[in-house]
Amino acid sequence: MNEDTATRARRILRAQRIETPSWAYGNSGTRFKVFAQAGIPRTPYEKIDDAAKVHELTGVAPSIALHIPWDRVDDFGALARYAADRGIALGAINPNVFQEDDYRLGSVCNPDPAVRRKAVDHLLECVEIGRATGSRVLSVWLADGTNYAGQDDIRARQDRMGEALREVYDRMPESMRLLLEYKFFEPHFYTMDVPDWGTSFAQCLRLGERAQVLVDTGHHAPGTNIEFLVTILLREGRLGGFHFNSRNYADDDLLVGAADPFQLFRILHEIEGAGALEPDSGVEFMLDQCHNLEPKVPAMIRSIMNVQEATAKALLVDRARLGQAQVSGDVLGAHAVLMDAFSTDVRPLLADVRRDAGLDPDPLAAYHRGGYQQRIEEERAGGAAMGWGA
Amino acid sequence: MNEDTATRARRILRAQRIETPSWAYGNSGTRFKVFAQAGIPRTPYEKIDDAAKVHELTGVAPSIALHIPWDRVDDFGALARYAADRGIALGAINPNVFQEDDYRLGSVCNPDPAVRRKAVDHLLECVEIGRATGSRVLSVWLADGTNYAGQDDIRARQDRMGEALREVYDRMPESMRLLLEYKFFEPHFYTMDVPDWGTSFAQCLRLGERAQVLVDTGHHAPGTNIEFLVTILLREGRLGGFHFNSRNYADDDLLVGAADPFQLFRILHEIEGAGALEPDSGVEFMLDQCHNLEPKVPAMIRSIMNVQEATAKALLVDRARLGQAQVSGDVLGAHAVLMDAFSTDVRPLLADVRRDAGLDPDPLAAYHRGGYQQRIEEERAGGAAMGWGA
Amino acid sequence: MNEDTATRARRILRAQRIETPSWAYGNSGTRFKVFAQAGIPRTPYEKIDDAAKVHELTGVAPSIALHIPWDRVDDFGALARYAADRGIALGAINPNVFQEDDYRLGSVCNPDPAVRRKAVDHLLECVEIGRATGSRVLSVWLADGTNYAGQDDIRARQDRMGEALREVYDRMPESMRLLLEYKFFEPHFYTMDVPDWGTSFAQCLRLGERAQVLVDTGHHAPGTNIEFLVTILLREGRLGGFHFNSRNYADDDLLVGAADPFQLFRILHEIEGAGALEPDSGVEFMLDQCHNLEPKVPAMIRSIMNVQEATAKALLVDRARLGQAQVSGDVLGAHAVLMDAFSTDVRPLLADVRRDAGLDPDPLAAYHRGGYQQRIEEERAGGAAMGWGA
Amino acid sequence: MNEDTATRARRILRAQRIETPSWAYGNSGTRFKVFAQAGIPRTPYEKIDDAAKVHELTGVAPSIALHIPWDRVDDFGALARYAADRGIALGAINPNVFQEDDYRLGSVCNPDPAVRRKAVDHLLECVEIGRATGSRVLSVWLADGTNYAGQDDIRARQDRMGEALREVYDRMPESMRLLLEYKFFEPHFYTMDVPDWGTSFAQCLRLGERAQVLVDTGHHAPGTNIEFLVTILLREGRLGGFHFNSRNYADDDLLVGAADPFQLFRILHEIEGAGALEPDSGVEFMLDQCHNLEPKVPAMIRSIMNVQEATAKALLVDRARLGQAQVSGDVLGAHAVLMDAFSTDVRPLLADVRRDAGLDPDPLAAYHRGGYQQRIEEERAGGAAMGWGA
Repeated sequence: MNEDTATRARRILRAQRIETPSWAYGNSGTRFKVFAQAGIPRTPYEKIDDAAKVHELTGVAPSIALHIPWDRVDDFGALARYAADRGIALGAINPNVFQEDDYRLGSVCNPDPAVRRKAVDHLLECVEIGRATGSRVLSVWLADGTNYAGQDDIRARQDRMGEALREVYDRMPESMRLLLEYKFFEPHFYTMDVPDWGTSFAQCLRLGERAQVLVDTGHHAPGTNIEFLVTILLREGRLGGFHFNSRNYADDDLLVGAADPFQLFRILHEIEGAGALEPDSGVEFMLDQCHNLEPKVPAMIRSIMNVQEATAKALLVDRARLGQAQVSGDVLGAHAVLMDAFSTDVRPLLADVRRDAGLDPDPLAAYHRGGYQQRIEEERAGGAAMGWGA
Repeated sequence: MNEDTATRARRILRAQRIETPSWAYGNSGTRFKVFAQAGIPRTPYEKIDDAAKVHELTGVAPSIALHIPWDRVDDFGALARYAADRGIALGAINPNVFQEDDYRLGSVCNPDPAVRRKAVDHLLECVEIGRATGSRVLSVWLADGTNYAGQDDIRARQDRMGEALREVYDRMPESMRLLLEYKFFEPHFYTMDVPDWGTSFAQCLRLGERAQVLVDTGHHAPGTNIEFLVTILLREGRLGGFHFNSRNYADDDLLVGAADPFQLFRILHEIEGAGALEPDSGVEFMLDQCHNLEPKVPAMIRSIMNVQEATAKALLVDRARLGQAQVSGDVLGAHAVLMDAFSTDVRPLLADVRRDAGLDPDPLAAYHRGGYQQRIEEERAGGAAMGWGA
Repeated sequence: MNEDTATRARRILRAQRIETPSWAYGNSGTRFKVFAQAGIPRTPYEKIDDAAKVHELTGVAPSIALHIPWDRVDDFGALARYAADRGIALGAINPNVFQEDDYRLGSVCNPDPAVRRKAVDHLLECVEIGRATGSRVLSVWLADGTNYAGQDDIRARQDRMGEALREVYDRMPESMRLLLEYKFFEPHFYTMDVPDWGTSFAQCLRLGERAQVLVDTGHHAPGTNIEFLVTILLREGRLGGFHFNSRNYADDDLLVGAADPFQLFRILHEIEGAGALEPDSGVEFMLDQCHNLEPKVPAMIRSIMNVQEATAKALLVDRARLGQAQVSGDVLGAHAVLMDAFSTDVRPLLADVRRDAGLDPDPLAAYHRGGYQQRIEEERAGGAAMGWGA
Repeated sequence: MNEDTATRARRILRAQRIETPSWAYGNSGTRFKVFAQAGIPRTPYEKIDDAAKVHELTGVAPSIALHIPWDRVDDFGALARYAADRGIALGAINPNVFQEDDYRLGSVCNPDPAVRRKAVDHLLECVEIGRATGSRVLSVWLADGTNYAGQDDIRARQDRMGEALREVYDRMPESMRLLLEYKFFEPHFYTMDVPDWGTSFAQCLRLGERAQVLVDTGHHAPGTNIEFLVTILLREGRLGGFHFNSRNYADDDLLVGAADPFQLFRILHEIEGAGALEPDSGVEFMLDQCHNLEPKVPAMIRSIMNVQEATAKALLVDRARLGQAQVSGDVLGAHAVLMDAFSTDVRPLLADVRRDAGLDPDPLAAYHRGGYQQRIEEERAGGAAMGWGA
């Protein structure tokens, strides 16, 4: 790698920002069982403590996404100040319109106008919360869908969604963007009302420029080439950001980079190719994982390291050589340039970048040495651990 | 259809037996939300009441599968008598070795021998419960697996499973069979310890003749030809039975026949081709569904009707003509014979069979007219509704 | 079904138009083997003879799609008159930019501008052919893609495609539409340049209103809900038409309706719901199949009958009851309304519609009786049978 | 890595044997187009030249698999001597029972006994060819299957297959093994007669100990965990060997390691865990790829290097630490041990191993420098290039 590539890699790696989700610090599981862990936060404030610890050790996770109502507090301004005191900011606001009995047949797509009203009101509340917390992103995931052919009218539901999102979009301050997430299936199993990037894209086009698509890496049909659609969305100026995690089968919610590190690298290669690793690109990098078996804070640190390693490899691709090989139709040669970067062990580079930033070169080891885990397990022994729906 | 086909179809349809699962009468849902319904049973006895109602209306559901510990009672003999008084029997015993914190890393495959001991003890308890209830089937589904490459030793886990099942198998009375279910994924997302029929088959071969494979129609990789593997297992004498339900994506647990009625027909066509629709075939027909959105008892009745319709169509296949077309290599002709049966509206035939048996020709309409739903909604208003884990 | 439903069903079924593809009358197969059949056309004229026979027997297939260069003749006007004399018209023009060595790395997305020029010129030629034949549809399927990560620049290829399609679009007469087909994979295995409906949609939006998406039912990721995306495209006014066929695994190219008749019904139910079964809807119904094992003309007749049966069932859905059940949140009830239509045996209705139109009620039997197959097998014994690439 | 690990890694890497397939040196493609390349062999002898060149540069590819009839010669003894003179041996014999019109409805599963006889005779011929060439492996891939439900009797086909394989098995010399390959789909699209490892396993069990399963890495349902089934087959003593290649979607036949290098590593990790990387393990490592776009000999060299890199990483796994972490239930820790090995850049180690063996550390660069490609392009300019079916 030439001097310039190296310098740029270090700059980007130092400036990279990865948002962690509050809900990943709480208990979570499958429909079969949520295995309880020790040291789980009992309040949104304790989630912030954990997120701040992750940022302290990694240096690249300076914000935490909130989930409403799971993270509802009386005074969001106070919550924001609490976070700021610990060195992090409140990030994207994630409304929840799927965990009340009213939402059995959907939220903004529900055939019952009263339920739709309730859902829209919650979304509007989240806009206001975002205003209070200084959040610039409203991450909308709609769990809406149907389980049986004929259960509801697909098109009518799409119309209802459009109407609801219009009201929300119009209420957002200029500084806020609406990111519309899609998901292939679950919790519904015949239709999801936003099952793919195309549907999200079509809805966003109707809303306006501050409506963009949110790509969750675990929400695709088997075999989907994610880096391809990322490229298309970047080309259309409609890629709002990522929810990173891993999947082998469904929405597995595993550590990002655990199931297919090469895929993560390819995604970051396309992001880099579009200039979207630059801090001002407007593309948000967020984690969205649910750790069923592994301890929460170490899992989050490991996930961040995985994104960093994929990013570092993407930054080491010799793009001049790559372009030459591509243009000349050298199939194996072009592929080899990409693989050279992927085969490189970037852990020394990242250790170096961390040292330069005054961090421990091995954040996980630092965490295990530091006593934080022991402390939270002791301090949080009483009370109700937070989790989905809590 | 000639006279003989018609006569045989009526005889088989009248003699068909479909077991309903106790857990399908309780609340269930996804990891995102369990939507509560009215009239849900609060005790195993009330589940039996519901199952008996389903049998009363359909005439083909004379047994109920139990799930332990969800259906644990002090006196299983009393439970069996309670059921018998209502016209049904206790069916397969389904152990649960996945809903305690100890089972985070597996049950019989767990690296910790103490957890394995606990799991085996539970399986042995279920053998004894089966003895007490007169059950002849132990349905073993192991939720065991891992989420991350390297998390555990795949082969060692297989060895541990073999050892555990050996102990259980050796304890079973001669009248009992062990049916080993497989599942492609969930609740684990890297490996499942019994992910496919081949693995179940290999374990069963080592155990002995009374160990057979249990086919859950929702537990396969995308695109899997289920009727093919059903045929292979029938040929090897290792098809123990079915857990019927529908899937579009994962283990969706929808009404059997709802997602792909043609697939259900094809499966029953192969069962019929192997003579396994005969009452003494040893192949068990069980439902295993989780109704997230729809009311429980009507959903169960509908599911049974769906199996009946697929069965009726399979019985109407003109097998003489089919065989001739197949042997002569007439691709379109052979396919057409099968499709002729599938295209037939068998609802009049089934209405007739029900009338002959003294039943209402439309069990669902009869249920809605009968007032049972209203009664249970009133009577079961207090107390805790049962569900997974309850 | 009430009087109006029945009347409307008969009218739509009589007016339905399904275009057959010239290439389905020629030999085709897999990469492993093309099995030769007897009686295969040796010229585009003989393909027209076969298509005319299919229309004569079914009454609903009055046009044939052409594939260029497979169907290239010196005088397309003469070809059109030949067809008209036999009662059918020339339909969609399908360019072929994938079967020359130059297209190894793509056609309009190729890194080599000379190859792109050649591809565009071919597309422009097809516009002119369409002008000569009176065709109103240019069906563009681009086999372009890459096999290896890094092989080419995903975004640059998208730009090249946009530029090429712009030139073609601008050349089309006002009466012509460009339908852009997408395909999940094959013949490329890392990226396809138009892999999904979203990418086609995005390209069409940039081109103009006469650019629309072409949905081939066999070109989706596993588990994709096709009727959903059909509904989205209809809502956006961008559904240009269908290439009907069946798939179990990939682009299997089996008889439409053979793999999943319920899916075909659901698709037609959505089409009907959007009013797009009306003759002037602008949605084209075309078959695109490759019969590897079965005889060509009978396969085509059977395919048309399958579409007719699915259409008839869709027309029988009691939409008033369906709407009521949907709006009231009656999950099982709404599903049941749909299933009632699907369970109906519509073959008598279709036989009746055919009789009314002066046709044999059983077109396949009429074909087998009529001697056509025997005649073409004799007459076409010499010469080179046509097929892909011929 | 400690001294012992390093020493063992070098020994195994030096002793590794990867067989290349004769057909990968010929032209191949998709059903849409076979793109012709320059320098393609025109005879089996020239294929051997290419394979010998690959072995000369890599040092680990000392045998070539044959495909009959593509590689049929009058004197197989002479062919073997020709190969031996160039430093390589003739390897597995691959019968072809899918490329004649007779095989339209199958080979050994065909409903027509005359076709079955023909197919068995070809398999027997291949046994004899293997005897003549000293081959110890008969690799049987049956393209048999059906395209339509009802087309043929699934079970009868299975019986026919069993009968045919029995005859072949009984004719094999004691030194020969029959490896039965399976494939999820293609060239048939409703059933394949050996679609999965379980079916192959069941057939092998009936045949005898020298019948084993052949795992082609591209022949699985989406999401299949290949390393899992590899482990099961190794545990049952029925893993005969591999056909290595890559897939994203179907049987893509891409360079092994190109689509998912982490998967290849995980497979080799399980092989190593079972001791099957030892030269006498009886597990055969073969490539089976079809290079549509890329030059043949370089593609083969690259593929071998990819297998070597995955092997090297598998050999570097710290198994003591891994076992400790696994037994103690340290999910993240165990996963991290595996990932440490995968993250390591093993190219320097492999360069070193090659230097020790007197080879160029970069076989691809050496090939490009060596002038072989130029020479074959000149020398093989006339005559008919070989390919599938040639």
